[in-house]
Amino acid sequence: MLSKKASSLCHGEDSSYFHGWQKYDSDRYDKLTNPKGIIQMGLAENQLSFDLLESWLASNPDALVMKRPNGESAFTDLALFQDYHGSADFKNKLVNFMARIRENKVNFKPDNLVLTAGSTSANEILMFCLADPGEAFLLPTPYYAGFDRDLKWRTGAEIVPIHCSSSDGFKITMCALEEAYQRAKKLNLKVKGVLVTNPSNPLGTTLTRDELNHLITFSVAKNVHIVSDEIYSGTVFDSPSFVSITEAVMDRNLERTDLWSRIHIVYSLSKDLGLPGFRVGMIYSNNKTVVSAATKMSSFGLVSSQTQFLLANMLSDMKFTDKYMKENKERLKKRKETLVSGIKLAGINYLESNAGLFCWVDMSHLLVSNTFDAEKELWEQIIEEAKLNISPGSSFHCTEPGWFRICFANMCAETIQVALKRLKDFSQSINSKKKAGSCSRQRRFLLGKWVSMLLPYDPEPDR
Amino acid sequence: MLSKKASSLCHGEDSSYFHGWQKYDSDRYDKLTNPKGIIQMGLAENQLSFDLLESWLASNPDALVMKRPNGESAFTDLALFQDYHGSADFKNKLVNFMARIRENKVNFKPDNLVLTAGSTSANEILMFCLADPGEAFLLPTPYYAGFDRDLKWRTGAEIVPIHCSSSDGFKITMCALEEAYQRAKKLNLKVKGVLVTNPSNPLGTTLTRDELNHLITFSVAKNVHIVSDEIYSGTVFDSPSFVSITEAVMDRNLERTDLWSRIHIVYSLSKDLGLPGFRVGMIYSNNKTVVSAATKMSSFGLVSSQTQFLLANMLSDMKFTDKYMKENKERLKKRKETLVSGIKLAGINYLESNAGLFCWVDMSHLLVSNTFDAEKELWEQIIEEAKLNISPGSSFHCTEPGWFRICFANMCAETIQVALKRLKDFSQSINSKKKAGSCSRQRRFLLGKWVSMLLPYDPEPDR
Repeated sequence: MLSKKASSLCHGEDSSYFHGWQKYDSDRYDKLTNPKGIIQMGLAENQLSFDLLESWLASNPDALVMKRPNGESAFTDLALFQDYHGSADFKNKLVNFMARIRENKVNFKPDNLVLTAGSTSANEILMFCLADPGEAFLLPTPYYAGFDRDLKWRTGAEIVPIHCSSSDGFKITMCALEEAYQRAKKLNLKVKGVLVTNPSNPLGTTLTRDELNHLITFSVAKNVHIVSDEIYSGTVFDSPSFVSITEAVMDRNLERTDLWSRIHIVYSLSKDLGLPGFRVGMIYSNNKTVVSAATKMSSFGLVSSQTQFLLANMLSDMKFTDKYMKENKERLKKRKETLVSGIKLAGINYLESNAGLFCWVDMSHLLVSNTFDAEKELWEQIIEEAKLNISPGSSFHCTEPGWFRICFANMCAETIQVALKRLKDFSQSINSKKKAGSCSRQRRFLLGKWVSMLLPYDPEPDR
Repeated sequence: MLSKKASSLCHGEDSSYFHGWQKYDSDRYDKLTNPKGIIQMGLAENQLSFDLLESWLASNPDALVMKRPNGESAFTDLALFQDYHGSADFKNKLVNFMARIRENKVNFKPDNLVLTAGSTSANEILMFCLADPGEAFLLPTPYYAGFDRDLKWRTGAEIVPIHCSSSDGFKITMCALEEAYQRAKKLNLKVKGVLVTNPSNPLGTTLTRDELNHLITFSVAKNVHIVSDEIYSGTVFDSPSFVSITEAVMDRNLERTDLWSRIHIVYSLSKDLGLPGFRVGMIYSNNKTVVSAATKMSSFGLVSSQTQFLLANMLSDMKFTDKYMKENKERLKKRKETLVSGIKLAGINYLESNAGLFCWVDMSHLLVSNTFDAEKELWEQIIEEAKLNISPGSSFHCTEPGWFRICFANMCAETIQVALKRLKDFSQSINSKKKAGSCSRQRRFLLGKWVSMLLPYDPEPDR
């Protein structure tokens, strides 16, 4: 009686990424009331700079009580129908904020901006606009676990992974792009574009000039779209600095070519300002038809006018936002260093990174075999024994077992120390068990790992 | 390069209903600055009771500044990720509010409620859950102009109209339901359900017991869903009182049958509380699978946590909400009487109604011929000459030319008098022209009208 979407498990949420949240929800860590509970390290939230936001709110009560600078109440206007074009004032402030994050090397026009209830909706709307059911987008792996839901579920679009490898630092290569394109063709899928996260979720790295140029060259050659999800652009806490797709295209003097209208940016205030609960996302596109269709589609997820008013006020205080962005990055950097010290002590390697709210770590040495089954087993052990919810690489479609994403900004300084202690103890305990394990098993494992390196990658790994 | 959805005009917004808004936007009436501008009577907004809401806000600043009753700030919790289950507190208050609107004859469980960014999203999500592309829902005509966009555009579902006629007061008859069902079958469309608005938009009437029983009998016989969009349930200002689909099903002791899980309600705070800008909609369903899938889909349009907090506080003040609902209905009733007096003076007939923010009026006597072309011509004259934006019946898929929806609650008392004066002048001027017109033309018109009454209804009328 129901639709296939509702009655089948095609919603893309059937992964350890989401299951980990459920486990956490059933046994949340609390220093006082549940000190043996699960610590959530699977959620890319930024809790490090709330004091700055709270202090701004305390000094600017008018923004909360919906009072305009002239003292008049804005309530009636806000309560009334806000059409899908969104608040002009808010959009002006947003494009200005986006430009400042990019050091004013690019600028944005408010008319090309579409507001959406979070970037989840922004990404889905772009898929609805750019791909018909059965058409495909290429995504470099590892990619955000939610994309299977956001990009495919209701749109009927397909994702074809671009296989990036740890041997290249998971960088996007021309070879990997071409290989994915040919694979899509073999599957009879029409490729409509490439979607990247820059900075990358889950890698925590910004795209290099080379990677951006590969994307641009590829998009020109194949006549396809580039969707650049830049929701972590304000979290770049270390060098190299952030280069947006817009800047990269401009640097190659391609603004007046067809490519320009195939560049679409997704942004949000959920990560950079730490406000996911407020549901503010957006699409920026130079394509008038996309802007027009996306604006109409935004009817299905408009941003509360109350929230638009509050944040327009906050963003108009440029002195505050500049200070916030600077301080927030410093705190993220410091927190990342804390995490890295801890995981080093636990004997765990990681990918060097410069952005985001997470670190991409390599625990393959703790696997009993070089398989995704073993990765899942390790993930279950970590959540059950170490009581840490971290997200396994398989949920990000990583092609190599043993990688995990660890979030570091969604807890206080004390909690991360507890988490790191648990991780170290767990790692040591697994290592001891492995040492005590039979020699033949060890040999089997190493042999398996060696064989898997020689075999071609299986696009449908056993997860 | 774009999807069919983005590049074609299948978005369902290509109707006079939406074009009228654009015309109004380009020449808005203002008593002082633009006294000859267009008065907006095409927008179902409720501006009559804002003073009550503002007065509540003034007495409850904590709800605005995100302070809890114990004095602590709720900001951090609200800013952080709100998962798609929504605020438990808000959902409790909402089901309680919904029950009170239904005089506590039915009660609702918060676990069956899914929050969405407005009812636009709620209706689309239900279609995604209940119908696969190419499957159909039956909708009684006239139906809300936005449904072509909301129900069909992105879901691929189809709408098959149930033709209701002025001779029955546009009531839903068993015969019309069966005729629509057979028409769908002839078109090779699988019928998945019936969607009604109760109270009806655009009729402004509540469904009668007979109509509800027809729907229930039909749904049982055909094994189809009933979606009841009850977003105007709090606007019933006159007898007969509102009977919800839930109550009607319970009165027939069908709660323990399959039918129960095929009943889905859409609700919103946009009309009853006059808060469309805040984007609060919801789905209530007894079907666990629908609730689960719809909850996941609500990711694409969550309600701002700031707004959830504010309105949870407001709804928890039952003394206030009871007073608001009572007073608001009285004001709507009075305003409706003002409108009716004015249109009577203009010699215009109307459908007797008891709810909503609009009146369904018959201007067929002002048409030059009994066609939808003539209706469009009249609509253009009204907007260009009388400077009133009212919505033609064709945009609501009415099968009889000459009906219009006039909204009455989105303006002040003074403006509606200006609007009614304009309508009277316009009506008189058209009547004078018609009287002065040639006798033969008049005869042609009457002959045409007589012939059209004898001919079967053309399902693809010339709009």
